[in-house]
Order: sequence, then structure tokens, then C-alpha cells
Amino acid sequence: MVFSQPIDVRFADLDALAHVNHAVIVSYLEHARTQWWRGLLEGRPFEAEGFLMARVEVDYRKSIQLGDAVVVELRCVHLGRTSFTLAYRVVREEDSAVLAEARTVQVMVDFQTMRPRPLGPQVEAWLKTQQ
Amino acid sequence: MVFSQPIDVRFADLDALAHVNHAVIVSYLEHARTQWWRGLLEGRPFEAEGFLMARVEVDYRKSIQLGDAVVVELRCVHLGRTSFTLAYRVVREEDSAVLAEARTVQVMVDFQTMRPRPLGPQVEAWLKTQQ
Amino acid sequence: MVFSQPIDVRFADLDALAHVNHAVIVSYLEHARTQWWRGLLEGRPFEAEGFLMARVEVDYRKSIQLGDAVVVELRCVHLGRTSFTLAYRVVREEDSAVLAEARTVQVMVDFQTMRPRPLGPQVEAWLKTQQ
Amino acid sequence: MVFSQPIDVRFADLDALAHVNHAVIVSYLEHARTQWWRGLLEGRPFEAEGFLMARVEVDYRKSIQLGDAVVVELRCVHLGRTSFTLAYRVVREEDSAVLAEARTVQVMVDFQTMRPRPLGPQVEAWLKTQQ
Repeated sequence: MVFSQPIDVRFADLDALAHVNHAVIVSYLEHARTQWWRGLLEGRPFEAEGFLMARVEVDYRKSIQLGDAVVVELRCVHLGRTSFTLAYRVVREEDSAVLAEARTVQVMVDFQTMRPRPLGPQVEAWLKTQQ
Repeated sequence: MVFSQPIDVRFADLDALAHVNHAVIVSYLEHARTQWWRGLLEGRPFEAEGFLMARVEVDYRKSIQLGDAVVVELRCVHLGRTSFTLAYRVVREEDSAVLAEARTVQVMVDFQTMRPRPLGPQVEAWLKTQQ
Repeated sequence: MVFSQPIDVRFADLDALAHVNHAVIVSYLEHARTQWWRGLLEGRPFEAEGFLMARVEVDYRKSIQLGDAVVVELRCVHLGRTSFTLAYRVVREEDSAVLAEARTVQVMVDFQTMRPRPLGPQVEAWLKTQQ
Repeated sequence: MVFSQPIDVRFADLDALAHVNHAVIVSYLEHARTQWWRGLLEGRPFEAEGFLMARVEVDYRKSIQLGDAVVVELRCVHLGRTSFTLAYRVVREEDSAVLAEARTVQVMVDFQTMRPRPLGPQVEAWLKTQQ
């Protein structure tokens, strides 16, 4: 994968089953994606080149426990006209176990009009380096 | 749909784009599912008949704003040997707009051994009434 | 108390001790405060008459469990020049047990300049009815 | 301060004002406290030497933004018979600005009976090194 984000598991991420709640893992993906996107933004605000989430799918393989050292890896697997698709692996560092796999679809949005807009040449060129 | 759960949108559910964060919508599904499951549990603890999440997929159609009256509807769409699948619609009450659609797969688990177990006759019979 | 907000306890609010996480109770206060403040806003956006949090203090008396019917009650206990103080009680409906008590201090802010501003006559008059 | 925990600010921590939500900062304190407590536990489960939260107070000085490098510092400021008090500073690394100050009171609990219990000699001795 082209990008890798360590996750600092917090006590508040656990639910009553004493593992990381499955919805929080969706936030882990978001955290990785946000950090990764800074590579494109290079200091510009998110509104300059921003997207909305169109779809999330996650397959949960193993529980994440407090104290686990966890990494979210991602890469771009599809470019559309106004959207792009990312694939993720959530990996436990200790033994490289895959804890979850995921895909998300993002739609580029003009934050003035809140309407979809084409990726544009800069985003497209950058995403091609992220496959 | 066979079950419908009103959601009380909280300020804390919003993210920096001033709409409900997409991961929080996964928690809305969970809230509906948990309330629905009480119909089976009839006062027994969750560990008596519990499951783990195996898969979540959500298609986000429209943003949810603070002040929106939102309902999560669900029904059972598939019964496996150890798992079952639920389908959801997140609906805005004002105009019945579908804000999100989702599916989740749950695996019944023996919380002593943490291993999958068959649905069993009681769960299977109940789920068949929830389709 | 002058305002009372029922709270819909979500599974995601629980932590690994299987009770509502203490930080989530701070979000319950926020939810009550946000709903209460709509009585002043009367449809105007939050930015029209908004505040930032300056201080929170909570005394936790009893755990909140999933399935508890919980209400947050609040009233205004102090008006300053640019700030006001609210007092809260988190109450279990079944037996009126006080689960938590809290106080928060809010500072009115001009969201153009992000600087404190006086309450102003309208906010002051309204808060006096909320004591 | 005797202990210092870097915080990885997540997009999901922001609220509609595009800064870290004030309740999430209470979770930051918890994360620091949990990591710090592992120094006592030395691999034992939390239930072996665990506590419940009795009180939280936070003074918010400055907003935390996405991208801020933030550290939570803590130390023990009071030992009671069954409880102890921690003081915290949330500090921005770039300029050492204090973003929040806080205190929390924890009560040692016997997780069999869910009743308070004395600190005991081991916890007391360790806490004295954490002042």
C-alpha cells in the first residue's frame, strides 16, 4: 500500500465488549485518509480540494484490543470522473494480522455549491501516483 | 421495514463540515439494531444471544443536519447458519427522503469461547418474523 | 430546573466497563444545552448568538446503564458580562436518582472575530427567564 | 509534570465549529491517564487495580485545530484514602501554549463488588512517585 497511518487506540474507542467499536474503525479509516490527503493539499485548506463520503464498506476480521499497535494502510484503486475509490487494510503490527479490510468511495465536491465536480488534472495526476 | 428507530441527532454527531459524520451514521445503525434486538432478548443480557459485526456497508445519499428528525428502519434480509444480514434505510421524517442505505452482517458468537455458533432455533424463528 | 432533555442512551456511549463513558456524559450536557438554546435562537443559526465552552465540571454519582431512561435538567445560575453559567442534573427517570451533577461556563463569541462579546440585551433578558 | 502523552488529533474529534469538541478533550485526558496507569499495572488487567471517575473539571483556554501537535501532561496532586486527584495540562507543542487545564478525581473500586476500596500500599507508593 502507498500510505500507512499508525493509530493510537484510545480507551474511549472501546465498547462494552472491551474491543474497539466497529464504527470507530470507520473513524480510523477517516483518520488515515485525512492524513494521506494532506500530501495533496500541501497546506491548503480542505475546502480547496475536498470530498464527501459516498460509500463505506468494511469487513471485520479480528477484534482490536486496547494496547494493540495498529496501522491503517491505504491506496487508490479507482478513479472516476467525479469520484475515487480507496482500499484499506487495518493491520496489527505485532504479527501483521489483517484486522479489517475496507473500501470507501469519495465524491469531489465544490463546497460553494455543494455539488459534485470533476477530479480535475491536479487531483487526477496525484491520485495516479497513489495506486 | 419491520422496525423503526427514531434517532436523536446530537451536536457531538456533527463534524467540521457541520453535518453528521459518516462514521456516526454507522453508530445510528447500531443504535437501531440494539433496540431492535431487545425484542428477541426480552430482558436477557446481550451475552445470552449476542453477535459480533462481520461487515458493514453504507451508501450515503444526503447529509444529515442538526435538527433533522431522522429514523432508522431495518429488516432481516438473509439468514445463514451462523450469521444474518440486515438491511437499513435512514429516512428524514419531514419529506421521507432516504439519507442513507446500509447492510450489515452479524455473526452469532459464544461469548465464553468467542467462537461463531449456529443461530439456533429460537433466533432463527424470531428472525423469520423480522423479514 | 427550567429545561429538561431526555437522552437516548446508545450502545456506542458505553465503554469497556459497560456503562456510559464519563466523557459521553459531557456530550449529554451539550445535547441538552443545544436543544435548550434553540428556545433563544428561534430558527436563527447558532452563529447568530453563539458561545464557546470555557469550563466544564461534572460530579459523577452513579453509573448510567444501557436501557436507563435518563433526563438532563438545566437552568442558568449566573450571568456575567460576556459569559453565563449553567447548572445541570442528570436524572434517572425510574427512581429520580441523580446520576451526575454539573456546571458549565459559556462565553459569548463573535464568530467573525472569534473574540468574546457582551451577552447583549436579548440574550440577557432571555437567560433571566431561565433561572 | 511526571507523565506526558502525545495526542493524535483525528478529524472525527472536530465538531461543527471545526475545532476539537470540548467533550473529546475529556477523552484526551482519559487517554493520557490510561497510558500513564499502565506504568502501575505492568501488564495486569485494569480490573486488578481499577478506578471509576468521580469528578472532572476542565478549563478551556484555546481551541485545538486539526494538525495541531498536542500533548497531555499529568501528575498526581492528592492522595485520599480511596481516591486520588490528577492535574493535567493540554499543551500545543509548537509554542508551548496551554490549551486546557484540568483536574480529575478517581475512586479505586473493587470490580467484584463495585464498591470503593482503599488505595492500598502498592498504589499509594506508586502514586507518591507521580507527584
